[in-house]
Amino acid sequence: MGKRKYEKLVSILLKRGFIFPSFEIYGGVGGFYDFGDLGTKLKLKVQEIWKFIFVKKEDAFEIDTRTVLPRPVLEASGHLERFTDPITQCKMCLSIYRADHLVEDKLGVPSEGKSPEELTKLIRENKIVCPKCSGELSDVSEFNLLFKTYIGPEQKKKEAFLRPETCQGHFLLFKRLLALNGNKLPVAAAQIGRSYRNEISPRGVLVRLREFDQMELEIFVHPKRKVHPLFHEVKNVRLRMEPLDMGKKTMTAQEAVEREVVPHQLMAYALARSKEFFLAIGIPGEHILFKQLSRDERPFYAIDTWDTVIWTDAFGWIEVTANNDRGEHDLKVHMEKSGEKLTFRDEEGEEIIPHVMEMSYGLDRPLYCVLEHTFIEDDGRGWSMFRFPPKVAPIEVTVLPVVKREDMLRKSKEIYNNLKLKFNVRYKVGYVGRVYARMDEIGCPYCLTVDGETIENNTVTLRDRDTREQVRIKVEEVDDTLTSLLREKKRFSDLKK
Amino acid sequence: MGKRKYEKLVSILLKRGFIFPSFEIYGGVGGFYDFGDLGTKLKLKVQEIWKFIFVKKEDAFEIDTRTVLPRPVLEASGHLERFTDPITQCKMCLSIYRADHLVEDKLGVPSEGKSPEELTKLIRENKIVCPKCSGELSDVSEFNLLFKTYIGPEQKKKEAFLRPETCQGHFLLFKRLLALNGNKLPVAAAQIGRSYRNEISPRGVLVRLREFDQMELEIFVHPKRKVHPLFHEVKNVRLRMEPLDMGKKTMTAQEAVEREVVPHQLMAYALARSKEFFLAIGIPGEHILFKQLSRDERPFYAIDTWDTVIWTDAFGWIEVTANNDRGEHDLKVHMEKSGEKLTFRDEEGEEIIPHVMEMSYGLDRPLYCVLEHTFIEDDGRGWSMFRFPPKVAPIEVTVLPVVKREDMLRKSKEIYNNLKLKFNVRYKVGYVGRVYARMDEIGCPYCLTVDGETIENNTVTLRDRDTREQVRIKVEEVDDTLTSLLREKKRFSDLKK
Repeated sequence: MGKRKYEKLVSILLKRGFIFPSFEIYGGVGGFYDFGDLGTKLKLKVQEIWKFIFVKKEDAFEIDTRTVLPRPVLEASGHLERFTDPITQCKMCLSIYRADHLVEDKLGVPSEGKSPEELTKLIRENKIVCPKCSGELSDVSEFNLLFKTYIGPEQKKKEAFLRPETCQGHFLLFKRLLALNGNKLPVAAAQIGRSYRNEISPRGVLVRLREFDQMELEIFVHPKRKVHPLFHEVKNVRLRMEPLDMGKKTMTAQEAVEREVVPHQLMAYALARSKEFFLAIGIPGEHILFKQLSRDERPFYAIDTWDTVIWTDAFGWIEVTANNDRGEHDLKVHMEKSGEKLTFRDEEGEEIIPHVMEMSYGLDRPLYCVLEHTFIEDDGRGWSMFRFPPKVAPIEVTVLPVVKREDMLRKSKEIYNNLKLKFNVRYKVGYVGRVYARMDEIGCPYCLTVDGETIENNTVTLRDRDTREQVRIKVEEVDDTLTSLLREKKRFSDLKK
Repeated sequence: MGKRKYEKLVSILLKRGFIFPSFEIYGGVGGFYDFGDLGTKLKLKVQEIWKFIFVKKEDAFEIDTRTVLPRPVLEASGHLERFTDPITQCKMCLSIYRADHLVEDKLGVPSEGKSPEELTKLIRENKIVCPKCSGELSDVSEFNLLFKTYIGPEQKKKEAFLRPETCQGHFLLFKRLLALNGNKLPVAAAQIGRSYRNEISPRGVLVRLREFDQMELEIFVHPKRKVHPLFHEVKNVRLRMEPLDMGKKTMTAQEAVEREVVPHQLMAYALARSKEFFLAIGIPGEHILFKQLSRDERPFYAIDTWDTVIWTDAFGWIEVTANNDRGEHDLKVHMEKSGEKLTFRDEEGEEIIPHVMEMSYGLDRPLYCVLEHTFIEDDGRGWSMFRFPPKVAPIEVTVLPVVKREDMLRKSKEIYNNLKLKFNVRYKVGYVGRVYARMDEIGCPYCLTVDGETIENNTVTLRDRDTREQVRIKVEEVDDTLTSLLREKKRFSDLKK
């Protein structure tokens, strides 16, 4: 995607109300975006697809825990000490940079995970200066990404932080969840909610945000049984893998386990479900890659991490999911800090600390990927459009009269009113070609047009966004036809038979 | 509801995993609750019903804005100065109290909205002391309820606050929303999301929280046209009203407008929709009251407020919705502070500041009301149960084999697997009577039981929670039957015909 195409995409997103810079009338603040009607509806659709795979298929518990966490939680988890980014400040213009990104940009070598000392050395040795004013840069220091606040009145306030990941809520509830699961492992719990990271350098419209949504599934398992009862459902899914010790290679989930490319079946399961999700929201298979992270790259709590990365024209490969084997880290540190027993007694009577397999999805980045991958800059007539899969489209159908005639207006409104409680519908009056183009622009897959024939025989034309073809259907069949199309149980071409 | 019944309710909520005290393993913090699987599902159901009425019927835009707001937003809105509660501290034991609540408890007179000076005077004159240790109380001071934080690195940090209400996001987006609405009023925008208030005295399990969910609809209208195009749909809804200048009185929405009990049609519309919502989630009509607030009682930004209040046995009448006419306050203050023009040019060419009609719903309190109102302490056999309306029930259906026989287990699991992607289903194996009682306890309206006949002729029994009656249906009819029952398009008694 050229710079021009990315700019066009962003301008459409703003103009049509997918997203807005937050606090825009006050000049905005980097890393904060709001969602308008189309953005919110798109988000909800992506969430529903995620839930279908990671809650419904998974038989997972759903939970909803707090975003404000008291200090001991993040002391225990390690975030207070280790959830940091290296920063450097220009001594002249006072600009602040993420030191690892700066070094990476200048030297072209991967620098995430390097220590402040190493980064300072690289800056000095390579005479890296401030990109804005060429001023001298300070020594690199660690900056903690947690947003801090206080609970309670001044006189008795308790230090607290906004959660950097939803999953701390899962870990704190482990005992409760285990009991509700009949004291049996595995226990799977999913949560969708807001998280916060006080990023130094927010990036792109939705790529690195300070306030963002996550969808996280945590499975607590016996450390010796990292398998999944539904693995058979996904064993033949083909995965494009990039393990640490070899180049890119495509194989099935089953093969990845057999050849020990992944450490266990549960990891292969996570990757296969990840592929299923990204295909469902409209990302082409060849742009979905699973990349193992090195010890330096992976988060401090993980013993093995495979990122799902998606190709974007504007930002290259970006991480959209962390499939983390968090081992015993989380339960162990919370057990030590809180004094509560967070163990499990297995069938042989052994007391073990369950391990955590995590599938951690951002919501905003997948959303960006959907937008970029479905965006057509020019549909051949000078209009741009989104080719959202019907399941994902924020507006599902538009009702319009072919001309502004009293009876057609009335009939269109009547059809709209019958549909609006069930579908995401828009009602539009205007020159037909222009309405089609405007609705193509926001990716609305179907238009229902009311014309003279409608008044005579109660039929309407149903127009398909992608082929621009039309079929005539009875008004009483509209509901069922749309339902099948939007659930992707029928394709438009099936209607013509 | 006796104290014992409330305690029983709360113990069931904890035991069955509707809610949990947050950070429980670290001793908990007042005013923070997490939601388990049942609580999360119940919340989502209540949200869906709200959206059906306040987004779908309303043709409202959906938006999703940020919870972290930079200082200027809350300076302008007035929250920084005026979003306070009066507090007093015991000089002996250092306990902190909400001064108005303390005075109200001790003297039995409504004290919300009184100034710190008035409250101090009342404390001194009536010799009110610390309820815990009888120590002397400090003069009353104002405590600001905003949670404060900072955006950006230390060197360049910007003061910010967690939003105390979602609607500030709506106001900041007004220009964008107006443009997307074709520069026409009214503009309606709805949002569901987290809000935060650093309460001094959190209360009940879900009644006064520090972190909670809101569902807010804001309608921007012309100040001279406070009407609603869909008023005809609700004009005959009967409302139990308590206006400031008269006692309780029941009348229709239409009559409330005609008799000028409410200031305008839009307010009557808001109240009628509010009643529709609370009836839909299972609150009996006689426990829904609309109460006008006095100048002292209403929020600082409102020019007229009618609270929807619901009777609860445990807490008396509690406010669940604020129907606020916020007048021009919000757009005016943001216009002045930001310098952006937030006006509207009407058909006569006059430039006006739109007014805001707000329907502000908490999510947690309505949830509590549903739980209390549907709770049966003893179903006659010593078990408690929730009589959730089918639409609201977190678990919709349970599949079980009548005995633990290989073929029945297999068949039950098969039926479960066919249903689980569409419904909220549980699969249970155990003594039938006990499974029924356990599922009644969490308010599951239907059970599907697999028995010998199922194996022979592919039928199952469908059991109704409320009547405990059973009907036999074909396995291939299960999906459609459940769909009709759960959408409340059919009742169980209809099946027997």
